[in-house]
Amino acid sequence: MLVLITYDVNTEDAAGRKRLRQIAKKCVDYGQRVQNSVFECLLDAGQCRRLQAQLLSIMDPEKDSLRFYYLGKQYEKKVEHFGAKSTYLPEDSLIL
Amino acid sequence: MLVLITYDVNTEDAAGRKRLRQIAKKCVDYGQRVQNSVFECLLDAGQCRRLQAQLLSIMDPEKDSLRFYYLGKQYEKKVEHFGAKSTYLPEDSLIL
Repeated sequence: MLVLITYDVNTEDAAGRKRLRQIAKKCVDYGQRVQNSVFECLLDAGQCRRLQAQLLSIMDPEKDSLRFYYLGKQYEKKVEHFGAKSTYLPEDSLIL
Repeated sequence: MLVLITYDVNTEDAAGRKRLRQIAKKCVDYGQRVQNSVFECLLDAGQCRRLQAQLLSIMDPEKDSLRFYYLGKQYEKKVEHFGAKSTYLPEDSLIL
């Protein structure tokens, strides 16, 4: 199934910037970065639970926000993209 | 149906920062901001087409990225949120 992961990490301090890198790095292990803090991951239920647990262990629930959207197996018609397809270094920021 | 809208806008220049504000403002007219550049909008097909056309007219397709995810009508079980930033299901009251 396609799982969309979006996150907002509070990067006001060094710890937050570290969490951001770690969250992005973990998501890259499981899927494709499609926007700055948006990942599309093709996961089975077990992989999804593992990734979720890993991300939850990294994030700060008081400061960061993590959202999972489950788009199922028939997802091709559920996704539309318009505009630039930016290239990212896996954990890095946007490259134009 | 629930439509998730995510975007990356290139804000390296003033024009980009203006596009970002306009895109966010337009999305607020149709739905709820759940993360920095992530909106959840409850739309019928007509509203979705209108919003899409308006956003496409604002964005710069060479520089910006806009993604639509169609989560259908039975969306409650397709969305999971962890951490900060309160949210509410579009028709319900605020969940704190």
